[in-house]
Amino acid sequence: MSVKSSFSFFLSILFLSTMICAQDEDAYMVKNIHNEALSNGKAYDWLHSLCKKHGGRIAGSKAYLGAANYTKGELGKIAGVNAYLQPCEANYWQRGKLDEVSVLFKNGKKKKLNTLALGNSVATPKSGITGEVIEVNSLDDVEKLGKEKIGGKIVLFNRPMDPTQIRTFSAYGGAVDQRVYGPSKAGEYGAVAALVRSMTTRQDDVPHTGVTVYKDSLIRIPGIGISTNDADYLSQALKGGQVKVSVISGGKMMGKRSAPTVIGEIRGSDFPDEIILIGGHLDSWDVGEGAHDDGAGCVQAMEVLRILESLQYKPKRTIRCVLFSNEENGLAGGKTYAAESNAKGEFHLAAIESDAGGFSPRGFSFEADTSVFKTYYKNVNKWLPMLESYGLHFETGGSGADIGPLKSQKGLLIGLRPDSQRYFDFHHTATDTFENVNKRELELGAAAMASLVFFIDKYGIK
Amino acid sequence: MSVKSSFSFFLSILFLSTMICAQDEDAYMVKNIHNEALSNGKAYDWLHSLCKKHGGRIAGSKAYLGAANYTKGELGKIAGVNAYLQPCEANYWQRGKLDEVSVLFKNGKKKKLNTLALGNSVATPKSGITGEVIEVNSLDDVEKLGKEKIGGKIVLFNRPMDPTQIRTFSAYGGAVDQRVYGPSKAGEYGAVAALVRSMTTRQDDVPHTGVTVYKDSLIRIPGIGISTNDADYLSQALKGGQVKVSVISGGKMMGKRSAPTVIGEIRGSDFPDEIILIGGHLDSWDVGEGAHDDGAGCVQAMEVLRILESLQYKPKRTIRCVLFSNEENGLAGGKTYAAESNAKGEFHLAAIESDAGGFSPRGFSFEADTSVFKTYYKNVNKWLPMLESYGLHFETGGSGADIGPLKSQKGLLIGLRPDSQRYFDFHHTATDTFENVNKRELELGAAAMASLVFFIDKYGIK
Repeated sequence: MSVKSSFSFFLSILFLSTMICAQDEDAYMVKNIHNEALSNGKAYDWLHSLCKKHGGRIAGSKAYLGAANYTKGELGKIAGVNAYLQPCEANYWQRGKLDEVSVLFKNGKKKKLNTLALGNSVATPKSGITGEVIEVNSLDDVEKLGKEKIGGKIVLFNRPMDPTQIRTFSAYGGAVDQRVYGPSKAGEYGAVAALVRSMTTRQDDVPHTGVTVYKDSLIRIPGIGISTNDADYLSQALKGGQVKVSVISGGKMMGKRSAPTVIGEIRGSDFPDEIILIGGHLDSWDVGEGAHDDGAGCVQAMEVLRILESLQYKPKRTIRCVLFSNEENGLAGGKTYAAESNAKGEFHLAAIESDAGGFSPRGFSFEADTSVFKTYYKNVNKWLPMLESYGLHFETGGSGADIGPLKSQKGLLIGLRPDSQRYFDFHHTATDTFENVNKRELELGAAAMASLVFFIDKYGIK
Repeated sequence: MSVKSSFSFFLSILFLSTMICAQDEDAYMVKNIHNEALSNGKAYDWLHSLCKKHGGRIAGSKAYLGAANYTKGELGKIAGVNAYLQPCEANYWQRGKLDEVSVLFKNGKKKKLNTLALGNSVATPKSGITGEVIEVNSLDDVEKLGKEKIGGKIVLFNRPMDPTQIRTFSAYGGAVDQRVYGPSKAGEYGAVAALVRSMTTRQDDVPHTGVTVYKDSLIRIPGIGISTNDADYLSQALKGGQVKVSVISGGKMMGKRSAPTVIGEIRGSDFPDEIILIGGHLDSWDVGEGAHDDGAGCVQAMEVLRILESLQYKPKRTIRCVLFSNEENGLAGGKTYAAESNAKGEFHLAAIESDAGGFSPRGFSFEADTSVFKTYYKNVNKWLPMLESYGLHFETGGSGADIGPLKSQKGLLIGLRPDSQRYFDFHHTATDTFENVNKRELELGAAAMASLVFFIDKYGIK
């Protein structure tokens, strides 16, 4: 071997050793992050307070303001974190006290159904609306049946979520148009109210709420979620002939209300202008406690800051925890945040959202502007081997609703992907409570996010 | 291009097309298996009956015999399945009606602790045993403290499961020696009873049972599981000085009882002598309903046969569903089954056990005799790309306790690996009930097993 080649060989070995050493260090950090989350985690305690003291947090409600102050206070207790509120206004909808849907039998008897008014739904007169039920499976069905058959009726949108989709979010995506646009479409064709089969693959008596959107401000009919068992009951009853129901509902829009987004950040030492965002949305529906949707995501994002601080990790880049307002009913928090960020000329190198429940993490989904996606994804993929032993995998796809408006900044948008099988058991229902979140699953999600933040902060992705 | 090379090229294309075509067909079959499990699955209904009508199925109990007859009957209803019972005898332990552990305060008051006698535990005298508590963290501690300090005491084994293990089964493996051998060891050093911290990472009031083994038939002291909250309570109390407890327990061994293993099989068309086994264990502890442990595994194994039959799949090899007896307390079912199989000169090409709960499947773990492992694993790995989109991954490691005795047949032993985070919330407790199993998670596990069985049956692994 010549001196020159010996030297090259020496350099190669040196380079290799440095690489191996860095990998060991990184693996050690990922292990420490997980140890910290699983041994000293605060996410579960935070979630308990958020659910039990500030549950049912529609943006603009008193509960929401309580939650915003509470989480801001907790973020502020983490050393090095600057916590503040970002003003935001949200259209506030309030559920009525009178909410009841009943089948009316010919003998004068009634059977109360398990229902829940959809978010934004208008009220009926106090005496209610009575009408004949007509079942449809899609918005198209309404158009095909036309005004003659839909007019004066109560439309039951009854296309189930497809149970054969392995990802339940795909099944949700394939059915939720009925809830979002169904009542509006039915109203356009002269219906007097709309019942929407709950967005779940479960057969049960639990009605699900969620946003409905009126296309035309002049034609608004009540939109009501109905449990899958009761949707099937009506469908079966219709096979026997005419079915009449009465609907009493009292929801109303209350105008704009203050609903600030909560922010806590650690300023980066070397590249403070490169922001790595972690977040979830603080608002929830009014029923249940907003545990999986999305208290879990909020406390996981908070926990990322706590873990990094407790491990005395000093980030090079700015790590910003953002608990968005009003994801459920207009996305005012996400839109306001992006607009202000753009106005300040900020750059979000990466944004990670957790808004798919506090279940066992199975990986991350990545999206970005096509002009930069390949480079980003290639760089991120280098860290995968160090995350696989934690059961984490990478995929390309969507990220999160609240961080979506940041896409124009051409950073990398990332969604935490927990196991999705149980999500729609609880989503938008009275059963979305603290008790249905498992401590370890919640903590592992936080650790997964903290690990990815660590890699992005240490190595960048550009 | 020469004629010869053109022909080679043509052959290559033909070969490639056939391969691609076979891959498409296989992917289609895997999709159909999942569709069938998720749309028409029977596992959940079977589990409901097993839990609600035959819950708490200690091998040898009436509940166990009921479960054996029920599952044999259901297997027999699947077209083409030959269902039968394999006789087996198991040592039957019965929990006493009197079971109570209380802290005795100096002022005469008592505080009842959340406890549950361990399986095989002997009874105390009816008036109970009273003694001073001494806390240890390991079997070694007992030896170090010696007879002088242990003699006459009630030993509290209080080493927690390590929460930082990502797989909870690893944490269990690191702590369960206290339950299995702790009471025996403590007795050897003169203790009068042993309390064992429950095998869970949760902090709660739920005591866990499970098997304890006496090394010496002459020295047997009662072994009692205690909830993690109460173990911590005792530990804290001991910091303030002497702590006395009274133990009343009434468990006893009832001798050998009939506890047959349940078998249902479809005979293979081409290689009937190559058996592919799928199974779980039918017995459970007496508390709870044996839902995750291991009703889930049993109904998943039954579901594999049902799915294949309903898709009109005609297996080349013999597919045998085995619901083993007495896994929890001696493994009589697994040992008897292997002995009979060996005596008949049978060969199990593969055996897949589901005994880690009815949670979202995350893959399979493979083990085999070292002489054949590499070939088998290499062949099996070819199918992985078609399973990854279902969130399934492969690893090497253990398989299942019941199929372990088959290892000498030099087939491939396989364990279904569901997500493990929630398993020890329920394991061996009164909360291991039907309600804590999610329908989709259960069904996906069955579909994963059926998919792997399909590949092994179609292609073999040798």
